[in-house]
Amino acid sequence: MDYGIVLRVLGFLLIIEAGAMLFPLGVALYYGGPDIMAFVITVLLTTAAGLVGLRFKPAKGVVRYREAFLIVGLGWLLASGFGSLPFVLAGSLPSAVDAFFETVSGFTTTGATVISNIEIQPHGILFWRSLTHWLGGMGIIVFTLAVLPALGIGTMRIFQAESPGPAPTKLVPRVDQTAKLLYGIYIALTIMQMVALKISGMSWFDSATHTFATMGTGGFSTRNASVAAFANPYSEWIIILFMFISGVNFSLYYGVIHRKMGILFNDSEFRFYLGTVVAASVLIAVNIASLYQWQLGKIIRDSFFQVVSMVTTTGFTTVDYEQWPELSKMVLFLLMFMGGCAGSTGGAIKQIRVLLIIKAVKRKLKRLIHPKAVLPIVVADSPVPEETVDDILVFTLFYLLIFIVVSMLLLTQGMDMLSSTSAVAATLGNVGPGFGLVGPTTNFADLTVLTKIVLSFCMLLGRLEIYPIVALVLPSFWRKA
Amino acid sequence: MDYGIVLRVLGFLLIIEAGAMLFPLGVALYYGGPDIMAFVITVLLTTAAGLVGLRFKPAKGVVRYREAFLIVGLGWLLASGFGSLPFVLAGSLPSAVDAFFETVSGFTTTGATVISNIEIQPHGILFWRSLTHWLGGMGIIVFTLAVLPALGIGTMRIFQAESPGPAPTKLVPRVDQTAKLLYGIYIALTIMQMVALKISGMSWFDSATHTFATMGTGGFSTRNASVAAFANPYSEWIIILFMFISGVNFSLYYGVIHRKMGILFNDSEFRFYLGTVVAASVLIAVNIASLYQWQLGKIIRDSFFQVVSMVTTTGFTTVDYEQWPELSKMVLFLLMFMGGCAGSTGGAIKQIRVLLIIKAVKRKLKRLIHPKAVLPIVVADSPVPEETVDDILVFTLFYLLIFIVVSMLLLTQGMDMLSSTSAVAATLGNVGPGFGLVGPTTNFADLTVLTKIVLSFCMLLGRLEIYPIVALVLPSFWRKA
Repeated sequence: MDYGIVLRVLGFLLIIEAGAMLFPLGVALYYGGPDIMAFVITVLLTTAAGLVGLRFKPAKGVVRYREAFLIVGLGWLLASGFGSLPFVLAGSLPSAVDAFFETVSGFTTTGATVISNIEIQPHGILFWRSLTHWLGGMGIIVFTLAVLPALGIGTMRIFQAESPGPAPTKLVPRVDQTAKLLYGIYIALTIMQMVALKISGMSWFDSATHTFATMGTGGFSTRNASVAAFANPYSEWIIILFMFISGVNFSLYYGVIHRKMGILFNDSEFRFYLGTVVAASVLIAVNIASLYQWQLGKIIRDSFFQVVSMVTTTGFTTVDYEQWPELSKMVLFLLMFMGGCAGSTGGAIKQIRVLLIIKAVKRKLKRLIHPKAVLPIVVADSPVPEETVDDILVFTLFYLLIFIVVSMLLLTQGMDMLSSTSAVAATLGNVGPGFGLVGPTTNFADLTVLTKIVLSFCMLLGRLEIYPIVALVLPSFWRKA
Repeated sequence: MDYGIVLRVLGFLLIIEAGAMLFPLGVALYYGGPDIMAFVITVLLTTAAGLVGLRFKPAKGVVRYREAFLIVGLGWLLASGFGSLPFVLAGSLPSAVDAFFETVSGFTTTGATVISNIEIQPHGILFWRSLTHWLGGMGIIVFTLAVLPALGIGTMRIFQAESPGPAPTKLVPRVDQTAKLLYGIYIALTIMQMVALKISGMSWFDSATHTFATMGTGGFSTRNASVAAFANPYSEWIIILFMFISGVNFSLYYGVIHRKMGILFNDSEFRFYLGTVVAASVLIAVNIASLYQWQLGKIIRDSFFQVVSMVTTTGFTTVDYEQWPELSKMVLFLLMFMGGCAGSTGGAIKQIRVLLIIKAVKRKLKRLIHPKAVLPIVVADSPVPEETVDDILVFTLFYLLIFIVVSMLLLTQGMDMLSSTSAVAATLGNVGPGFGLVGPTTNFADLTVLTKIVLSFCMLLGRLEIYPIVALVLPSFWRKA
């Protein structure tokens, strides 16, 4: 293991995090809040820790799989640890477990909160809380790669280990250039949404924080009632649109910028994603119509909002969907497992994996009649390697196994079945709210300490797609090669 | 498609079914019940239909995959259709849908019932109902193969299409000899249990019917309260033992007979099955201990009974497990998906598939560290072909997809989420009782007609492991080769 390169990248990461904290510090200064000192201390501590890391030199400058996993796994843990300091120091969340939960929830773009009264929090804290979504969405390490001078051989492995989806593509040959391009697109879309929300009638502060939470598919709001608090149909439609946009593979936008609009609709995952959103929204719209006394506008807005919020794993709410009929609730529950497209900021299993599973089932049905036919699974006109198909099937079943085991663990902590399963689905899928004790009108504050720790790791497992976190606890990972 | 051979085998099957109905007819005559004429008419009709089938001659005498699927799929539908006639004719279930549901539930060894008051039914009807479990457990077509003179080339395909598990083994080179051996073991165990139950204090009639339901892992009882009605700890332990025995791969008993006792514990699936049963029972025992006020004997008996009943997909009950804590309920719910070993009479996904999924996950974790290592999955000292691994992963995910889609469908029929998901898990897994509206203290009688039809097909899908039923509705299946 080349610890030199690991510590060096982690050092860079912390320096960047300290830099990012200057924004909430600025906000705190602007509003003259009680959280100024919390940010000053945290920035100093984080910078100091970062400088220590920078003192290490890479041995060979080659990142192998081990180093990549360690950078990503430790990077997320460290960033969450230092990122939780402002919550503790400002007195927003005195418990370290609570503050860690909230920060992990932010960086992993989950949006599950343990803050019961959000509206009394200082502006700097609320800004930081939302900014973690934005940073975590596209990837805090991808960001580091974009800013860092080229690290040497193997940075693609770090990129892969952090990027959601089975096989991230480089848009341009160099990883750092790819990272820069992705962040460029991300920033452009962020500005567009922020301006749109401002025009719709929200304050700059609310526009910014809700844009960070939307673009990162996070879900933290500055209001206890989430987006419902604004009671503004225009803002809701803007958020629906940008949540949907954030659920798309960002590398497709690179094509769109180059005036190849067709690239979107030629992408089978995008078509599948669009189909999922429309089908689920229509199904729910029909299902809730009588409950809504046939108010067509509200039916369509609420069904689309909640479907897009769940499938992109954002977790904003405009309605108490637990009052909806059972079928609608089950659809939402299932969407929590699907997630956005690969290479989006969304979490969970991802559209491409669900699509490939369906294709694998269809292939099996064809083989019933023609047992010896060679039938590769085709996506976007090219055959998917059998090893990738196998990986996707195993990943999905592993995801479900983790879901089951952790749900059972939570039942020992006094939760009922619906609450525990939905809490795990909501954290593992980086969604945020679930059902029952963790439903849209409540939060995660009253859970036991053990539950909060376990769910924090679920969020990390989900965001990093299991392996970088699990690898760190395998004995063979630490054995000498 | 060689319709000649298909119709000929189906003809044989119906003749055998008519022959099997002579037993309940005998019971009806002995008790002088009102169901005598129902059986006389059904035997005549079934024999006549069988004779029509026998008039067809095979074209080439070769059974390909198509013929095998058609024989198995149609065979089970026809057997269930004719098998439901006594229920209608005797007035036990005047509705054809109800009678079909009950018979499919019998043959598929599900044990979900739509008869609200079982204890007022005539003896012949109750005997037939339990006998369908026994016939369906080892396979009605395997039975036909055992009785039929050698059919020609390809009977192995019929055997495979009906046998549960990924790869059924022939004990001896000839399929009809293998079928005879399996039924020999089955009959021997059946006689042992029947005598044991009689000694424990049950009547011959109750011993026989409950033995059929145990050996087939079915679950129909002659009492409304299921096995709880006898309040006899000895009978309960005998049933626990034989349910467990019926959940084991029967080909292992062939080795046991030849004095190779070690063959059981050398079998990884058997060890995994035993581990599952013990772990789940102990977990539940600990979980229910305080509820049972530490009555150790009853705690162990109830937890083992319910665990073995669920995991073998029998579905007998001795307790209202819906009063148990949430963790115990979730364990039972999950066991409904696991099922017994391949080649047993149990349903659901099967132990070997779950074991292989865990092994596939472990392999993936090894590959994180050694991405290029060649790591075959090993079971019983020999590597499992990659194609089989792939098939198992796809099967499991297909099973879960069907579970999800049908559960959603049931929500449109006025069921809540727990009732609908458990009803589908209980029928697809051939278990019987579930939770909520279909819990241990109630039955399937009050469901809508559509629900009953859908669940009937779920039972067939589960028992035949999806493909033989799905193949029949594929357009490509009917296209000329």
